[in-house]
Amino acid sequence: MSTEGTAANQSPGRPGETAGSIGGESAPHGGKGAYSETRIRVRYAETDQMGVVYHANYLIWFEVGRVEYLRDKGFSYRDMEKEDRCGIAVVEARCRYKAPARYDDVVIIRTRVARQRGSILHFTYEAIREEDGLLLAEGETIHVVIDDKFEPCYLPEKYREGIGG
Amino acid sequence: MSTEGTAANQSPGRPGETAGSIGGESAPHGGKGAYSETRIRVRYAETDQMGVVYHANYLIWFEVGRVEYLRDKGFSYRDMEKEDRCGIAVVEARCRYKAPARYDDVVIIRTRVARQRGSILHFTYEAIREEDGLLLAEGETIHVVIDDKFEPCYLPEKYREGIGG
Amino acid sequence: MSTEGTAANQSPGRPGETAGSIGGESAPHGGKGAYSETRIRVRYAETDQMGVVYHANYLIWFEVGRVEYLRDKGFSYRDMEKEDRCGIAVVEARCRYKAPARYDDVVIIRTRVARQRGSILHFTYEAIREEDGLLLAEGETIHVVIDDKFEPCYLPEKYREGIGG
Amino acid sequence: MSTEGTAANQSPGRPGETAGSIGGESAPHGGKGAYSETRIRVRYAETDQMGVVYHANYLIWFEVGRVEYLRDKGFSYRDMEKEDRCGIAVVEARCRYKAPARYDDVVIIRTRVARQRGSILHFTYEAIREEDGLLLAEGETIHVVIDDKFEPCYLPEKYREGIGG
Repeated sequence: MSTEGTAANQSPGRPGETAGSIGGESAPHGGKGAYSETRIRVRYAETDQMGVVYHANYLIWFEVGRVEYLRDKGFSYRDMEKEDRCGIAVVEARCRYKAPARYDDVVIIRTRVARQRGSILHFTYEAIREEDGLLLAEGETIHVVIDDKFEPCYLPEKYREGIGG
Repeated sequence: MSTEGTAANQSPGRPGETAGSIGGESAPHGGKGAYSETRIRVRYAETDQMGVVYHANYLIWFEVGRVEYLRDKGFSYRDMEKEDRCGIAVVEARCRYKAPARYDDVVIIRTRVARQRGSILHFTYEAIREEDGLLLAEGETIHVVIDDKFEPCYLPEKYREGIGG
Repeated sequence: MSTEGTAANQSPGRPGETAGSIGGESAPHGGKGAYSETRIRVRYAETDQMGVVYHANYLIWFEVGRVEYLRDKGFSYRDMEKEDRCGIAVVEARCRYKAPARYDDVVIIRTRVARQRGSILHFTYEAIREEDGLLLAEGETIHVVIDDKFEPCYLPEKYREGIGG
Repeated sequence: MSTEGTAANQSPGRPGETAGSIGGESAPHGGKGAYSETRIRVRYAETDQMGVVYHANYLIWFEVGRVEYLRDKGFSYRDMEKEDRCGIAVVEARCRYKAPARYDDVVIIRTRVARQRGSILHFTYEAIREEDGLLLAEGETIHVVIDDKFEPCYLPEKYREGIGG
């Protein structure tokens, strides 16, 4: 599993969950188009008594991937909520589990925008075990951009081109 | 929103999240076949800064629904893991969000077995706001029955007929 | 473990996590003063790979206990936030773990108000395994009442007497 | 807020939540002795409808800090559980909240071992907002080393000296 695509995020001063810059134009596991990579170390709290990561946590990781994708594109989701008074609500989420992630594994979340049309955004994700490149899960989420009254609205123009899809 | 189907679970001594007995043969929102109902009061911890329930929590609620469905059928998932050395691993999960659940709402999780074949189990769910019967979300999960080495196996015979699907 | 104190909450129509009415004036495990009881069924998501409930979940359960305590006193924390524009922020939390809770256990959260003075509220909790009355954990939380600007304020008068402490 | 102590963990190939090497012998906020630093980016899932991080999450972050402290000392908690068949169970946890962490904040968890005696381990933590060095919370956890039958045991010798305290 090459980590070249993420070299940029290892520079000093890059805090938090280490997110890769836009990694490339192709990927070993399905999908196409530019992607972003985020590394997440599995927390003890995320395991369950089967000894593996509890399945709902992947949706949380996908969200981390989504936010880091936006950051890689130059956008802050926090500012989008605060300054542009709009949010990205989830209208559908889906995950297919291929192999279990385990405690202390480093999991790469590879995030892409599959489609963007009007107020609809469609992301896809792969969760990959860093150690050996094993695909753990893949998923999609569909979102609607909403204003502060929870009404669908267009993505502010400054985001539209940059986000891709 | 009729709660007749759940009268049984209001009897004294019924602890924990109140789960309905098998509720009936039809339902206002899609699906068919016998269902089970579980009531969940939204916890503060389950909300996010949008002021609604964070979307990953629905997968947790679906699991609560699944376990209560089994209990309604006379089975304990805890015993299945402990005594029969087999588990029900999630291989796919999907949720479509229709309307946000909010803090302190009582949400009914209506659970059905859609299919059971070999080692595969397929559940469907509706999350319904108790106050007014509004459909908040609907979802599906697909499972494979596994032994204690994480290998697919058949559901022990005693469960097969009872579970339905 | 007597459950007499909670008979009231088993009446039909009482939704969500079953919370007892104010249960009595004394308790087997420490503490004194009127208490409220809430029953929580351990979710699979709350376990970790040690096969027991992950310790942070007790703080979530304590909060469920707190809200049900208020409900038993005739108050809705949801309305307090919405209508009275004030919240109860946590300034300190503490938990001592005595014995592990396990998946599918029913855990009774017994909640008391230990003190109420000005904008400070002090709650205590016991987590008790329903099956045999075993004390699983005990804890305290200290809170400050805040207005919608996160500034300390007095608890609105209507709540002050009712809450106790 | 100096980040010099964490320069080491920014080297390429350091995956997961970025954890500092043992940072120094003193710290601005209380405590003494060598500490370890871990950076955590606040996830949306960790916020609640008050618009701040839900308080129970700090216990999860403290655990991340604990594991990274051990890693900095050359130990893997995963291997301790797997190879040495012993775990570090929480017997007490405490947190004092000073200021709210918010979505997308980078929070530094500064972890120390305060004491180690027999099978007892005592950790202390500070949660610090990276942006401006503001102390968000401080806490302690007390642990007992247990074997795979949940009986107290001594920490395997190889860990004893290295861990400190």
